[in-house]
Amino acid sequence: MEITRHNFKQVIDQVSEAVDEASFLCIDGEFTGLNNGPALHGFDTPQERYDKLRKGSLDFLFVQFGLCAFKYETEESRFVARPFNFYIFPRPLNRNAPDCRFLCQASSLHFLASQGMDFNKVFRDGIPYLSPVDEQQMRDTLDQKHATQQLNSPPFTSGSSHTSDSGRTIQVPAEHKDFIQQTLTRIQSFIDSEEETLQLEPCNAYLRKLIYSTVKNKFSSSVYLETKVGEQNQHYFIEASKANEELLKKRGKEKRQQELDELDDAVGMSKIIRMICQSGKLVIGHNMLLDVLHLLHKFSYPLPQEIDEFKSLVNCLFPRLLDTKLMASMHPFKELVSNTTLGDLEATLGKEPFKVPVIVFPEDFPGYKTAQEHQAGYDAYMTGRCFIIMANYLGTFKSQSKPVLPGSALLEPFVNKLYLMRVQDIPYVNLAGQDLKPNRDHVFHVTFPKEWKSNDLYQLFRPFGPIYIAWIDDKSAFVALTKKDQSDLAYKMLCEGVSYRVRRYGDHKEPHASHGRKRPLSFPETIPPRNGEGKRLKVTSSDVGRRVSPVTQRCITTILEEAEDKPPTEAGEEEEEEEHGDEDGDEMKEEILEEKTNESTQAQLFEEPEAW
Amino acid sequence: MEITRHNFKQVIDQVSEAVDEASFLCIDGEFTGLNNGPALHGFDTPQERYDKLRKGSLDFLFVQFGLCAFKYETEESRFVARPFNFYIFPRPLNRNAPDCRFLCQASSLHFLASQGMDFNKVFRDGIPYLSPVDEQQMRDTLDQKHATQQLNSPPFTSGSSHTSDSGRTIQVPAEHKDFIQQTLTRIQSFIDSEEETLQLEPCNAYLRKLIYSTVKNKFSSSVYLETKVGEQNQHYFIEASKANEELLKKRGKEKRQQELDELDDAVGMSKIIRMICQSGKLVIGHNMLLDVLHLLHKFSYPLPQEIDEFKSLVNCLFPRLLDTKLMASMHPFKELVSNTTLGDLEATLGKEPFKVPVIVFPEDFPGYKTAQEHQAGYDAYMTGRCFIIMANYLGTFKSQSKPVLPGSALLEPFVNKLYLMRVQDIPYVNLAGQDLKPNRDHVFHVTFPKEWKSNDLYQLFRPFGPIYIAWIDDKSAFVALTKKDQSDLAYKMLCEGVSYRVRRYGDHKEPHASHGRKRPLSFPETIPPRNGEGKRLKVTSSDVGRRVSPVTQRCITTILEEAEDKPPTEAGEEEEEEEHGDEDGDEMKEEILEEKTNESTQAQLFEEPEAW
Repeated sequence: MEITRHNFKQVIDQVSEAVDEASFLCIDGEFTGLNNGPALHGFDTPQERYDKLRKGSLDFLFVQFGLCAFKYETEESRFVARPFNFYIFPRPLNRNAPDCRFLCQASSLHFLASQGMDFNKVFRDGIPYLSPVDEQQMRDTLDQKHATQQLNSPPFTSGSSHTSDSGRTIQVPAEHKDFIQQTLTRIQSFIDSEEETLQLEPCNAYLRKLIYSTVKNKFSSSVYLETKVGEQNQHYFIEASKANEELLKKRGKEKRQQELDELDDAVGMSKIIRMICQSGKLVIGHNMLLDVLHLLHKFSYPLPQEIDEFKSLVNCLFPRLLDTKLMASMHPFKELVSNTTLGDLEATLGKEPFKVPVIVFPEDFPGYKTAQEHQAGYDAYMTGRCFIIMANYLGTFKSQSKPVLPGSALLEPFVNKLYLMRVQDIPYVNLAGQDLKPNRDHVFHVTFPKEWKSNDLYQLFRPFGPIYIAWIDDKSAFVALTKKDQSDLAYKMLCEGVSYRVRRYGDHKEPHASHGRKRPLSFPETIPPRNGEGKRLKVTSSDVGRRVSPVTQRCITTILEEAEDKPPTEAGEEEEEEEHGDEDGDEMKEEILEEKTNESTQAQLFEEPEAW
Repeated sequence: MEITRHNFKQVIDQVSEAVDEASFLCIDGEFTGLNNGPALHGFDTPQERYDKLRKGSLDFLFVQFGLCAFKYETEESRFVARPFNFYIFPRPLNRNAPDCRFLCQASSLHFLASQGMDFNKVFRDGIPYLSPVDEQQMRDTLDQKHATQQLNSPPFTSGSSHTSDSGRTIQVPAEHKDFIQQTLTRIQSFIDSEEETLQLEPCNAYLRKLIYSTVKNKFSSSVYLETKVGEQNQHYFIEASKANEELLKKRGKEKRQQELDELDDAVGMSKIIRMICQSGKLVIGHNMLLDVLHLLHKFSYPLPQEIDEFKSLVNCLFPRLLDTKLMASMHPFKELVSNTTLGDLEATLGKEPFKVPVIVFPEDFPGYKTAQEHQAGYDAYMTGRCFIIMANYLGTFKSQSKPVLPGSALLEPFVNKLYLMRVQDIPYVNLAGQDLKPNRDHVFHVTFPKEWKSNDLYQLFRPFGPIYIAWIDDKSAFVALTKKDQSDLAYKMLCEGVSYRVRRYGDHKEPHASHGRKRPLSFPETIPPRNGEGKRLKVTSSDVGRRVSPVTQRCITTILEEAEDKPPTEAGEEEEEEEHGDEDGDEMKEEILEEKTNESTQAQLFEEPEAW
């Protein structure tokens, strides 16, 4: 079911009912971009990864939220799915409300638009939202304003209702005197007539301001003015109606109620998120760490610096989470699932040894006749479908024919662990306690000249067996040995290089972690003049394409690891397949994982912890 | 004519011809936002305004560019208009190309989408562009790559073509060994068969990588692999064809040409802008300062710090500019035009004493049956229409019946002056020389407690007559006296205040000007724990809406002057009309001007310089 600000109020009770009745809830989010900070890499610690996402991913907008409520009907032995697809957009409530600035990433928008995301609907019809902090501030302001107005009602006649403006008379500029005089004459005739309302000609905001001011001065409470919108929203005009103090009092009261209602509308999407939090139910997502960060950041409280505090916050708001991408990567599924991207996972789970459950949609839900990947509601539904199949598969080990539902001990190993994308040896963020701290004695931090490419590193480490490279930037990388017993020898042989430097992982403090936020966009404050001294830039068309400035208006993508062959000059015949980053029908954020495995040695490199 | 990346190549010659033949060119731009820095205000100097726009407005994206070429046909005594509406979007050319991050302003996107802007078309089908700097960097990289490849051709068979990868063998992980073995067997059968091509099953990027690597090892140059896209762009698969060194050499050459063509496509929109620059023709816009800044910033060179250098750059790239909003604000038009927003201006110019010219569209241009305000192509057309009417009106003073065309001395007073929005006493940026430096002895910089509202300032200055207030932020403003002869007295009486401070304009250095860029978005690095000491945040649902943090994820709008009554608590009955910021059918960026005039005394305050 598609939900915009136009039908939000009509369906909110239906959403509430679906959440109340649900056995579990599945969610998914779509964003205007993924990252704008230092590259994520294979040896991030959970704290480092959390920092990178917190600083580099949350300036993007949450444009679509998918919620699919699944209810198990025991008698029918079937699940009922209610998928909701919410369009979200923080349109300012009024000119005094915050006017959000947000970031976009060109590749993300192009990808989503190509997948059918309707951005016109997002921007035009998106449901607004307010964080609790914003809401409270706006509510306080409104309460204060209303308290003042009620003391001074009726609002229009009494000068004291505009306490701050009372001493001020708007002077009508000479060029508008005729216009205003004509308007006053028309209103006088109207008051003397038997008409109930009078529509003035459309005019601009300034002229309307003059009309309000002069009419108020001249006619006091005997006339009530209201600005209305013309057909097709093209023009605004003033409608005058006859009034008295009683009527104005009533209108004032109506207006205050209307403002409270508008604020309530502005809270919008936040109500849905609060509903989910308050349900306390199992909330399931696929690769959901970024979704959870966005949900907290936009709909609850500013994110804390420390990951432990973040975990506490998550535990309060979403007491039970489950990540199907992690579940599919853990025993017993990892042996059966070669690709955990959502589309591929669903395909794998549709075959033996898995059993497809009965899932039906209520009458008022259209269901999905074709795949609609990357539509948040559809992805939430697919996530739930995958969960049900995997959960039921766990039941087969205990010869359980009934479905395995939240609460079952079989699911406990998967609860409150969020998939940690691309990290080599730490599969998840553990919301329920301390994170894993794998031994990294075989990992080295290497710095080198920026001309170096993968092969230079392969050559350097060749004597010590195959390696896995995690690029940090074009002058540094983490290098992990496959043959761990070579670590001491490698360090002894390599630590003293002329053009490079090799340090043990443990001796290295990653520079990103301790520094402040990398700013999303940077522009040159100065341009080096080409001739070195001329005060005036002389640029002719023949210069086009020759001047080279160190900073352009674009940011070079920071996902260096994605590019198997770091610089374009290395790209050969095989490169073409890598240009289709958004392929294979799964989320861009997951695509990174696929690329990771291009490093051939990765698959055998690390022993996974028992719990995985 | 609508132009996207799909028909760009087909119509570029048509655009070129239209530009070549044109008597003059009109342009317009639409952006994803307007400002993200310190508020623009009525006493900005041109340098200050330039700084604010340069630092606060250029992170937004240029999403639509309108170009309307007008050609005068002497024999027919008519103008032929060719309007082009370009959708622009910097989709990354490939994974090694820059992936642009850009800002959006929620109110701007909502406004444009409501006006019919098709953002799906922008993001999906927008024409890419490269600045000269980016283009040159990418061209150098490609040239270097191709030089290497040609040395080592054929690219696929020779290990040395992948110089950096040559020492490396991709190991096939155990779980994929069967799959790869089957694939190799299929390819062997294919080579032995009489088939010309073989399509492998769709598979993900990692598996394709394994196939490329193992096939290369086993079959060398006897087979050529290519990745292709399946129907509906759903999946990628590999197509194998039989090959030999000759064929591979040819394919290599084709691929290099294809890469050069792709780069050429990526330059895209920049070609159009260069075309306009190189034409040297009169380029006309309506309120075009921001458009010019964006054009320079995105399609030419980084903007210099000093406005004088900026002027030199503009003079080189756009030697002749004319701003119809400024023209309409100057004698003899300002006496006849009460509202200079584009829609209203066009309406005014459609009546006496103005004469509507004959403007026709060529057959292949649909023309405009209804108004399409804020569509860049339409606005460019409207701008030209307004220009023609105003230019011809100038001719009537010399009893000239022929149209007044670029080159006429009658137009010279209006050339190379760009409208300076909202500034009280400096109507334009003078591209042809020094800017006006009006006397500001009657202007004061006032700082005060943030609780102060307009009325507190009116009260403070009441003894010295009416004032005009230009808010800087909630604790400071510029205040201008209408009665200039009161300036010394006012300063003497007011300079020593307990809660406020009044300084003369000349003694005040505006804090914004000397400081660095205001960052577009800021996030709290720390959250003050609510209980003051607890390391873990304990938040329950009953806390929702209570905690107040000093920073939220949104920025409060910086256009404080727009709000006649600064804080919402001051808003009265008249406020409702101000909530419709995007009304009156003109650009949001112009709307600010309308609001400015709400300050009633403004109209008579300043003597305009002779040239205006």
